[in-house]
Amino acid sequence: MKIGFIGLGNMGRPMALNLVKAGHELAVFDPVPASVQALSTAGAHAATSVQAVAQTHGLEMLITMLPAAAHVRAVYLGEDGLLAVVPKGVLLVDSSTIDPMTAREVAAAAQRQGNAMVDAPVSGGTGGAEAGTLTFMVGGADGDFARVQPVLARMGRNIVHCGGAGNGQVAKVANNMLLGISMIGAAEAMSLGVALGMDAQVLAGVINTSSGRCWSTDTYNPFPGVLPNAPASRGYTGGFGTDLMLKDLGLATEAARAAKLPVAMGALAQQLYQGFSAQGHGGLDFSAIIETIRGKAA
Amino acid sequence: MKIGFIGLGNMGRPMALNLVKAGHELAVFDPVPASVQALSTAGAHAATSVQAVAQTHGLEMLITMLPAAAHVRAVYLGEDGLLAVVPKGVLLVDSSTIDPMTAREVAAAAQRQGNAMVDAPVSGGTGGAEAGTLTFMVGGADGDFARVQPVLARMGRNIVHCGGAGNGQVAKVANNMLLGISMIGAAEAMSLGVALGMDAQVLAGVINTSSGRCWSTDTYNPFPGVLPNAPASRGYTGGFGTDLMLKDLGLATEAARAAKLPVAMGALAQQLYQGFSAQGHGGLDFSAIIETIRGKAA
Amino acid sequence: MKIGFIGLGNMGRPMALNLVKAGHELAVFDPVPASVQALSTAGAHAATSVQAVAQTHGLEMLITMLPAAAHVRAVYLGEDGLLAVVPKGVLLVDSSTIDPMTAREVAAAAQRQGNAMVDAPVSGGTGGAEAGTLTFMVGGADGDFARVQPVLARMGRNIVHCGGAGNGQVAKVANNMLLGISMIGAAEAMSLGVALGMDAQVLAGVINTSSGRCWSTDTYNPFPGVLPNAPASRGYTGGFGTDLMLKDLGLATEAARAAKLPVAMGALAQQLYQGFSAQGHGGLDFSAIIETIRGKAA
Amino acid sequence: MKIGFIGLGNMGRPMALNLVKAGHELAVFDPVPASVQALSTAGAHAATSVQAVAQTHGLEMLITMLPAAAHVRAVYLGEDGLLAVVPKGVLLVDSSTIDPMTAREVAAAAQRQGNAMVDAPVSGGTGGAEAGTLTFMVGGADGDFARVQPVLARMGRNIVHCGGAGNGQVAKVANNMLLGISMIGAAEAMSLGVALGMDAQVLAGVINTSSGRCWSTDTYNPFPGVLPNAPASRGYTGGFGTDLMLKDLGLATEAARAAKLPVAMGALAQQLYQGFSAQGHGGLDFSAIIETIRGKAA
Repeated sequence: MKIGFIGLGNMGRPMALNLVKAGHELAVFDPVPASVQALSTAGAHAATSVQAVAQTHGLEMLITMLPAAAHVRAVYLGEDGLLAVVPKGVLLVDSSTIDPMTAREVAAAAQRQGNAMVDAPVSGGTGGAEAGTLTFMVGGADGDFARVQPVLARMGRNIVHCGGAGNGQVAKVANNMLLGISMIGAAEAMSLGVALGMDAQVLAGVINTSSGRCWSTDTYNPFPGVLPNAPASRGYTGGFGTDLMLKDLGLATEAARAAKLPVAMGALAQQLYQGFSAQGHGGLDFSAIIETIRGKAA
Repeated sequence: MKIGFIGLGNMGRPMALNLVKAGHELAVFDPVPASVQALSTAGAHAATSVQAVAQTHGLEMLITMLPAAAHVRAVYLGEDGLLAVVPKGVLLVDSSTIDPMTAREVAAAAQRQGNAMVDAPVSGGTGGAEAGTLTFMVGGADGDFARVQPVLARMGRNIVHCGGAGNGQVAKVANNMLLGISMIGAAEAMSLGVALGMDAQVLAGVINTSSGRCWSTDTYNPFPGVLPNAPASRGYTGGFGTDLMLKDLGLATEAARAAKLPVAMGALAQQLYQGFSAQGHGGLDFSAIIETIRGKAA
Repeated sequence: MKIGFIGLGNMGRPMALNLVKAGHELAVFDPVPASVQALSTAGAHAATSVQAVAQTHGLEMLITMLPAAAHVRAVYLGEDGLLAVVPKGVLLVDSSTIDPMTAREVAAAAQRQGNAMVDAPVSGGTGGAEAGTLTFMVGGADGDFARVQPVLARMGRNIVHCGGAGNGQVAKVANNMLLGISMIGAAEAMSLGVALGMDAQVLAGVINTSSGRCWSTDTYNPFPGVLPNAPASRGYTGGFGTDLMLKDLGLATEAARAAKLPVAMGALAQQLYQGFSAQGHGGLDFSAIIETIRGKAA
Repeated sequence: MKIGFIGLGNMGRPMALNLVKAGHELAVFDPVPASVQALSTAGAHAATSVQAVAQTHGLEMLITMLPAAAHVRAVYLGEDGLLAVVPKGVLLVDSSTIDPMTAREVAAAAQRQGNAMVDAPVSGGTGGAEAGTLTFMVGGADGDFARVQPVLARMGRNIVHCGGAGNGQVAKVANNMLLGISMIGAAEAMSLGVALGMDAQVLAGVINTSSGRCWSTDTYNPFPGVLPNAPASRGYTGGFGTDLMLKDLGLATEAARAAKLPVAMGALAQQLYQGFSAQGHGGLDFSAIIETIRGKAA
């Protein structure tokens, strides 16, 4: 399939590479020339602009992977933006993580131009992007989901249809807010149990067979040494950075504000990660928040 | 085995009944005569006092199931309390949910008198007590755990050894604090996703295969209709009452205070349940806290 | 002085009227014709557009009073916006409450066009606007402050110079975040003391001569009956609406996010007011938040 | 007047000294001999036990200043405690800071023995104790207040009658909870304003004439350099220690739990100070909490 790909950063680059490896014909662009070069070497066509990607002859699908809503707006809705130049019928896929309201606004504008659009934010980090094991949370019409599913499946393992336009973003923001909360909950519970004299492994074992069980205790336990493969057991390197969690919690609390819904735990979690990041730890895996509870952070 | 059982309330009565059914000889006491009568009818020996239970001829084990630490102190340590009258060698088992510090203090006093003691708080509620499917979190020496295990197994399904004296209480308080936090997290995430336009079932499905997954979403989801057997789908009746969760969060934050450990999420969860209870909803299942987020509570 | 005034809502209308009464020549505009009519009747010149106000012959100063940052951007920076048409040298004054970043961006754009600009958000509510007793928090150069001060003094009593461009907004957002926090603190303290048996008036008296003293206890006490003139003593009508407090807390937490500064109490306060508003009480004075603590809200 | 004084720690010693200086005859006791010696040198009679103080010939009033509720219970209600030996008619005054429930329980027991009792906790710290400028918050009957007032006035400047027994403790716990909240609120607001570009002195000036005004901004501002005499301007030494604030917040949240009253801000404040103390800063003035917001703490 002929696919355009715009945005070749830490996530976009390995995702696009996986599409090339799967045999798709890619036209790619990124403002950083080195990123374009890397894809070009792998066999993709290096376009010279957003517009050039959109006007690639025979284009069937166009994927964007951008840092934030402002970039999505600019790339799609700006003067000379994608919607002004892309041929009708090209299926648009935005994999950026942005707020649901913007996702819906852009999708509606695309629809008016004659282009179907789905939002398809991912989870799984750069490791998942490289391994092709990302989770895609997809918002869009049934037929459009059917068209993108096989393409996304070359970049990810778990492709979930979440409903209409914007719902991919909704699912991601809701899931990650809960993740941000339960990680701190896990950190408080593990720290409390150990402070009161329990062995961390034994405590994790009890919780994981009880009602406190969660992904943050059984798969990604923040206490060092409990899970050999978790970031906690390698100095909180790699994994999902605190500043990325902060971005998602910012989207969640902003969405809650727009929906006038009280999210006291989500907002408190945001501030606790913010304090940790302000101390200079924004690059550590988010499970390192446990250090603020155990008194190890500085 | 000849077993004493003191405390025949909503939890203690069905627990003791399961021991009688399993063929154990029970001597029982409770200040409420009707509770004693119920066990007596089932075949237990009705004792007339705490002391009488302790002095039952040939007693091998003595189980207590009491409302709070003050009762445990009074029954064990008071003048004429259990430790003053129970023969050396009788194994003491306290299944009350109390703070770890008191549990350890009483166990140490028992040890000095020549009686081994384990703490064995339960989770699973009155339903689990009746069905014999409770979880017991046990703190005590290895040999003592080996002795109580077969007895507890007639009242529960999951008998977990958590380490030395008091660790059963530690495990319970840590697990339940995390449960209290993740339930509100689940309630915020489900409410936010639905407010932003997602179907509750679809959202739960996404979360349950993602990093937000927890017992509060996959087994006990607070959103009405997601899980047919959860309290949320029957008006939040039955289940684990808000006021019981409040008791456990009170134990958790007190233990954290003694340990000088910050538990911001645990403390906020406590206050949110407290507000809900103060509005008159302390008898509802704790997952009903979602009503304060969705704006349905009054 | 010849002054333009754009934005004649609940706040802008009485403010503009006070300028007319003070003898200034006003050219006014608002998209709602009735609002323009009211000023016209009082002696102002009714302009037919934003542009017409800006091009009033001999204009010396132009004041805007708009709902939110998006409106400020549109009115100043949009195509055909103020900056495109206003003559160099006219002093621009924005009294809207918006985020400091936008305020600084607009001021810098004005500067580039040859127009000095100050931000001058107010506090004091519609009552203060009518009585001419508003507080103005002004950000801008010393000379510009000197020029606006006598004009603002016809609409307010307290005209404070907070430093350079944007600092008026900074001062307001910081002050109001603290206000939002201390009001809930006052509500919790008053409710706790009364629940424990103290008379509300006596308790307020003690606090007001002690270290808990704050504007929310000595001037605007949230407990009914303590201060006869406070909203609490008239059913929480009038005053400063919960939804206005919510707007300001939203600005504060967004600014803190941009500055990467943890504001746990500010964020929690925001969510508590948000829950109260979601229950339908957004129109009540913000001190009514005490009802969620005393268990009176529904 | 002949007065007994039990408890000669950092607070009790200077308080007792002020009574001696005022010409009262004192009989004193403390388990630390050096403390007794200091008073004896100043002219007080050194008693050898709590009981000896109580049985001093001609005793009219007996004041206690003890660390916590457990000590108050032991000294008054224990076997051989004060109530067992003090002559009827001696007026009992407890200046310890404890929970209102215990204060009322001890006062009721005293009443049954024929001794009137008032609770009279103080604020003002060791500096106030030495200078005789403490604030006393007094709970007790009108006639008893009238009797203690002149005595307390030799140790303090502000003697406030808060209502019946226990109300002194209620007033203190309510006031100090609000203080703990508004100090963090002040710290967040000052830090936010400065991070956004304002001068700290100018910001404090604006807040102190606006609705954010509180004791924590106008008398004890936590930002270094704003008030030359505040602990913030001398490295947060002296003043009111973080661990003392923690003790009071513990009393407040426990009292709220007993009263089933949600105090979300009070509980969050407690955890924030707890985290600061756990990092080793419990001895710093509580306004140093601002360092956790500005990212200066380690």
